[in-house]
Amino acid sequence: MTTTAPHTTVTTLARTAREAAAALRRTSAADRTHAISAMAAALRAAAPSIIAANTRDLDAARAAEQPDTRIDRLRLDVERLEAVAQGLDTIAALPDPVGQVVDHRTAPSGIEVSRVRGPLGVILMIFEARPNVTAEAAALCLRAGNAVLLRGGSEARHTNAAIGDALAHALARSAIPAAAVQVITDPGHDVVTELLQCERDIDLVIPRGGERLIRAVVEQSRIPVLKHYKGNCHVYVDADADLAMAAEIVMNAKVQRPGVCNATEHLLVHSDVAGALLPVLGARLHAAGVELRAGPRARALMPTAIAATEADWDEEYLDLVLGVKVVDSADEAIQHINAHGSRHSDAIVTQNAQHADRFIAEVDSASVLWNASTRLADGGEYGLGAEIGISTDKLHARGPMGAQELTCAKWVVVGQGHVRS
Amino acid sequence: MTTTAPHTTVTTLARTAREAAAALRRTSAADRTHAISAMAAALRAAAPSIIAANTRDLDAARAAEQPDTRIDRLRLDVERLEAVAQGLDTIAALPDPVGQVVDHRTAPSGIEVSRVRGPLGVILMIFEARPNVTAEAAALCLRAGNAVLLRGGSEARHTNAAIGDALAHALARSAIPAAAVQVITDPGHDVVTELLQCERDIDLVIPRGGERLIRAVVEQSRIPVLKHYKGNCHVYVDADADLAMAAEIVMNAKVQRPGVCNATEHLLVHSDVAGALLPVLGARLHAAGVELRAGPRARALMPTAIAATEADWDEEYLDLVLGVKVVDSADEAIQHINAHGSRHSDAIVTQNAQHADRFIAEVDSASVLWNASTRLADGGEYGLGAEIGISTDKLHARGPMGAQELTCAKWVVVGQGHVRS
Repeated sequence: MTTTAPHTTVTTLARTAREAAAALRRTSAADRTHAISAMAAALRAAAPSIIAANTRDLDAARAAEQPDTRIDRLRLDVERLEAVAQGLDTIAALPDPVGQVVDHRTAPSGIEVSRVRGPLGVILMIFEARPNVTAEAAALCLRAGNAVLLRGGSEARHTNAAIGDALAHALARSAIPAAAVQVITDPGHDVVTELLQCERDIDLVIPRGGERLIRAVVEQSRIPVLKHYKGNCHVYVDADADLAMAAEIVMNAKVQRPGVCNATEHLLVHSDVAGALLPVLGARLHAAGVELRAGPRARALMPTAIAATEADWDEEYLDLVLGVKVVDSADEAIQHINAHGSRHSDAIVTQNAQHADRFIAEVDSASVLWNASTRLADGGEYGLGAEIGISTDKLHARGPMGAQELTCAKWVVVGQGHVRS
Repeated sequence: MTTTAPHTTVTTLARTAREAAAALRRTSAADRTHAISAMAAALRAAAPSIIAANTRDLDAARAAEQPDTRIDRLRLDVERLEAVAQGLDTIAALPDPVGQVVDHRTAPSGIEVSRVRGPLGVILMIFEARPNVTAEAAALCLRAGNAVLLRGGSEARHTNAAIGDALAHALARSAIPAAAVQVITDPGHDVVTELLQCERDIDLVIPRGGERLIRAVVEQSRIPVLKHYKGNCHVYVDADADLAMAAEIVMNAKVQRPGVCNATEHLLVHSDVAGALLPVLGARLHAAGVELRAGPRARALMPTAIAATEADWDEEYLDLVLGVKVVDSADEAIQHINAHGSRHSDAIVTQNAQHADRFIAEVDSASVLWNASTRLADGGEYGLGAEIGISTDKLHARGPMGAQELTCAKWVVVGQGHVRS
């Protein structure tokens, strides 16, 4: 269902989603699988009209002189749309988390006590330009039995409306209520503000986009929000590291795709190995186009580096820039990461299992990696099949969130007339 | 550590707790067990001074003409203090959740991916009069490796200070940093308001008390809050119920302890069995002192009932009052509960497994019970050993929360130089 809701109907949108969520609890895993497969087929069938709608959005973005990177993120050609459809096929094939028994025990009184996974209910996704998110988020929410309200960026509004129409077409021929997926294309900011007040009818908000968008959502929301503000990720090269391995991990973590949240922004190197590692690695990073911003001891070992300021340690560059600091112990590295990091993904390179264990236990981040690149902190790499986003919060879900993270476990008690004595 | 913090030091309190939480990550399960046992011993040793402090609080409460129920909740005699100490012994014996591996897989790239439980970090407990909460909450937070800030009601402030001194005495002789448990006895409301802004240093807020207290905390907090506002619990007696069993469950759920959150407030009865059940059960409830507020069809079967208003269905009486309604289907019961309930604990009485399965899947509550009293929805009855509170939220934890719910699972990735390709 695509809607261009005027403000008066915002609470109706949320209420309609709540009713769809109730109806979804009466559907089977097979019903949901069929619906997601039908959504993939509908996207393929509607490719010409989706791409035509995308052309309108692209023309408007060009007319508004949007930067090229933004226009590229907005573009949906046949290949990209096919990739989205394949993503939906993958989600259709994922195990359905609804009804999974997490825990079971017979309590002293004789009652059988279980925890059983069920849908959260209604999820509101708020995201920026990428129109591929629309269909993928809808499918992943459905996989876990949830109704979803999708509010994409206004630059993608014709594309999102066309995708919403295709999904609605698929759902209309399925056992899933059409209102289980509602694409909101009203350009007004007030719609979001009002939706964020609907705490009775919306169970979870997931914003995806820049830090400013996410902070605005958190400020306004009366509903729980799962999010990450930024990814200030670190690699710490320990005194006991394999330095060749360390160099490969750092190059990959910084250079392979610098604009994403699990790219490494800061390198910490133990003073015992800084002299052996940094001159060579610094030259290699410099040759790869990386700007080095270093503390005084690191800078002395890397002639191409400029001086880092105190503010650098808190920065997420999302670019070919790397902050470098020499530390005197694993403890100092752990303290630096916990003080300046964003609790996203941080790695240690070491051959010393005790040092790795301490790092893993004490670094308070969603993902901690030992002898692996931070770029591997990803739902796909972890085998989740698909991810709805990444959380740096500590409650409910940390790190990449898959279908399971879109459920909650209720207590199910089976007695035979048991009462409290 | 007991503190009577002036406002300027509130952020220091939170920062000190954060540092204690970091130090706690370097302690072992045995360290925590020893500390909790030492806390129990210290409470027993300090019994005379704790009871003397409690006498001061009781005198002040009597002078302020507080109601008897409130004074009773505040009172801590030798027996009650011994029960608290025994509660701590139980917590010391609980399995330690820190380091538990929740999930493990080898991902396609060859990295080993696990989810491992660790402490949340710093927990702020805000609670009303009952001084037994102070020591129990401290012990349960420590069991899961967390530092805790405890802010009890001002009526109990001398008692809480004496308990805090005893706990500090125990921690000073343990491997646990003394600042892992901080009892805040400053009477000012501003302390709480300021603490609720410390989102960088406090990870979770758990308020326990009346709905007004909890709403005020949620309004002010920038930190995630786990809570339940109220317990509007239901028993639904299905057409296929064993009516003798149903009567026992309803009597227990309503009468056994009406002032607590898992007591049943509303009874829904299928019209097929209303005529057989309600006249007898109504008389029995009336004889037990229960005021019956009924819809028209139920009232016709229970001469002692008064008419329920529409507002009654949303009410948590916490008293010998029961709302009663006749419904025509399990569906109608499910819809009523989802519309008027508080997502706490709701029961179905039936011999029909299909009806029970639908009720369990579709009632969106933290606990759903089949042929058992709602009074069994309790951490102790579920075998958790101890509970820190009950959540009617859907994220992170639903229902009774034990030590496990005071942890979060981080992703731990072990590679051998793996990078993203």
